[in-house]
Amino acid sequence: MLDPKRTISELKELRALTGNADGAQRIAFTSIWATARKWLASKLAELPVEVHQDPAGNLWATLKGSSDRELLIGGHIDSVPNGGWLDGCLNLLAGVEVLRRIASQGTPPVTIRLVDWADEEGARFGRSLFGSSAASGSLVPDEVRNLIDRDGIKLPDALKSQGIDLDHALDARKELTIAAAYLELHIEQGPVLESLNLPMGVVLGTFGVERHSIIFTGQAAHSGSTPMDKRRDALAGVSRLHLAIREIANRHQGVCTVGRVVTRPGIVTAVVGEAEMTLDQRHLHADKLAGMYRDAIKASKEIAATEKIDVRWQKIWSIRPFPFHPDLIELGDQAIREICGQSHRLPSGPLHDAAEVCRAGVPTVMLFVQSLRGISHNKIEDTLEEHIAMSVRALDRLADKAIAWISKQV
Amino acid sequence: MLDPKRTISELKELRALTGNADGAQRIAFTSIWATARKWLASKLAELPVEVHQDPAGNLWATLKGSSDRELLIGGHIDSVPNGGWLDGCLNLLAGVEVLRRIASQGTPPVTIRLVDWADEEGARFGRSLFGSSAASGSLVPDEVRNLIDRDGIKLPDALKSQGIDLDHALDARKELTIAAAYLELHIEQGPVLESLNLPMGVVLGTFGVERHSIIFTGQAAHSGSTPMDKRRDALAGVSRLHLAIREIANRHQGVCTVGRVVTRPGIVTAVVGEAEMTLDQRHLHADKLAGMYRDAIKASKEIAATEKIDVRWQKIWSIRPFPFHPDLIELGDQAIREICGQSHRLPSGPLHDAAEVCRAGVPTVMLFVQSLRGISHNKIEDTLEEHIAMSVRALDRLADKAIAWISKQV
Repeated sequence: MLDPKRTISELKELRALTGNADGAQRIAFTSIWATARKWLASKLAELPVEVHQDPAGNLWATLKGSSDRELLIGGHIDSVPNGGWLDGCLNLLAGVEVLRRIASQGTPPVTIRLVDWADEEGARFGRSLFGSSAASGSLVPDEVRNLIDRDGIKLPDALKSQGIDLDHALDARKELTIAAAYLELHIEQGPVLESLNLPMGVVLGTFGVERHSIIFTGQAAHSGSTPMDKRRDALAGVSRLHLAIREIANRHQGVCTVGRVVTRPGIVTAVVGEAEMTLDQRHLHADKLAGMYRDAIKASKEIAATEKIDVRWQKIWSIRPFPFHPDLIELGDQAIREICGQSHRLPSGPLHDAAEVCRAGVPTVMLFVQSLRGISHNKIEDTLEEHIAMSVRALDRLADKAIAWISKQV
Repeated sequence: MLDPKRTISELKELRALTGNADGAQRIAFTSIWATARKWLASKLAELPVEVHQDPAGNLWATLKGSSDRELLIGGHIDSVPNGGWLDGCLNLLAGVEVLRRIASQGTPPVTIRLVDWADEEGARFGRSLFGSSAASGSLVPDEVRNLIDRDGIKLPDALKSQGIDLDHALDARKELTIAAAYLELHIEQGPVLESLNLPMGVVLGTFGVERHSIIFTGQAAHSGSTPMDKRRDALAGVSRLHLAIREIANRHQGVCTVGRVVTRPGIVTAVVGEAEMTLDQRHLHADKLAGMYRDAIKASKEIAATEKIDVRWQKIWSIRPFPFHPDLIELGDQAIREICGQSHRLPSGPLHDAAEVCRAGVPTVMLFVQSLRGISHNKIEDTLEEHIAMSVRALDRLADKAIAWISKQV
């Protein structure tokens, strides 16, 4: 029988084993991470599953079913430094509990696999989703070969210490070849469910991101001797574009953020000659994301013309959205309603391993459980225990629905 | 006879003597400054004037007139490091030329005095208007006693090397006790006259200044997981207040400048939790300045309430406006019109020694001559030679008018 209380006590056990007063310390490819994995393996050893580490360092536990078709449930045991007690490992330990329940009922109709993705966070080398991007095939080994951590250790050497060869990491692709569906439970890490007073929601996909630096150039001038109508104030570009991108975000129902502004010369007695701002735009739909980006460029040019200043854009980074599977979204919604009474559909701002599995063409869905104060990546990250219990039950319910869905598809 | 060409060649002589490839280097209380003063004294030695240095280091040249009532003409031979060839010394050398012209015509009806103020720029110790503020009595010796330059030399020791005792600097007040009027010619250091295509303008007074730091506090949040309507974006306070202060400046016909913005945490993936901006507000009229300040506070509070963020103000510095004497403004306007055909009345954004003389209760006015591209405090600072020549003639014309004005007042 499913025992969500056991999941909660195992989460606490893991926290005691691999955390300290500053929070979780399971940074990928370190000895504490290896300790956490050994502990996880000891839990799996009690089940009728085959366990192995793939060439990218992902840990797989396979419960053979009547069919070879596979239902995957995933999470990650690695954490950021000084991390919370739920991010990544709730997903895994809920999955272990679901595996236990299914195994206790004999051979399932389809094969069930639990995966612990290697280095979701990318906290040590600055490259997140290492293991899942190897499995999806999007990892480019040469792009990460020279990454070093703060102690000067190279990524390939850190991998080697855990029995992983970077040049064979892409062989992990074979793990996804016959996957029929992928499920991932995660804490929301945002304020939406708490503000709606709902325990859970089903995730529509992960946002695509357009990230740019925008530089406005005007003319530095003396704050006393330059009349207002003689100024070419670069900061006016930033102020007006910042307000414009909020309207653009609302119009397209996405999110746009100006996180950093730098002014030059940046002194109290001078009109700003050059002002730089970052712009992070996210949307679940590629066309809307492209629309937000186009609208922001257009707005920046109009503002620059009005203010008689210049503007230029520099790309920082971008990624396309990964919308989840509509059938699985519907099943996730049902599962949540059955357990919590009410559900909510929401996009995921942060990326997750689910995005890489989705990229590989596997029908994917995620469930979010409420985060208190929307805080994550911090030792005060928390979720009500009754909500954690509900989330284990909802994942279990969704697993059954997904098994039926896969079985129907033959 | 007045010879403005001589003024131009003397300016070039001074530049060759005390400048280098980077510009003027006559920083106050240094040996180059002393060299410049010795050169100035050599010019004055050819005239029937009494020359002395007052207890604050100001250099005075007095041409006795039929009356003890005094017309003062002032400037400063000190420059910023890498300064221009006109700032401060045009005033003085034009004054020397006016003295020559008046002296050549015999004993004037009133006493004429030329003053070279000590350390107008404050470039070395960060305290401008040293000599003129001693003469006005506003200098507080204990407030400057511990100022040090970048080599660790204390202001009192730098003064001592030039024969000045800080504790007797305020004795310079006696120099202004019987002054009847003060005239100062200066380059505009701003873009107004050039934009109007006018050689000269008469100055209405020096701006009062209110200078503050304003800090908005919202809530830092993840740029992906936080919907637009759940944000408390501190940067919105800065953007909206920046746009609001431009309207406030226009409404009150003053100037308001946001010169520096700092965002915290200041990363591309986080909504800004705290945003700080500087605000420099200037106006010629104390009540309008107070109105601009009040309006900005009101706007900041309204914006903070709308954005659900907090705002607090920290004072950096303030000074009251010094409006010049209406009769002298009228005479300056006449003098300019007679020489240039057309005049313009404008306030001075930067402070000048004239503000301190005005503070001491001496009727004061300044004349501005056009600055090319509005640039000053830089080796590319420049003014057309025909405009320099006009400015010498206009100062001379104004001196005659002021002498007549003083004579009438007995």
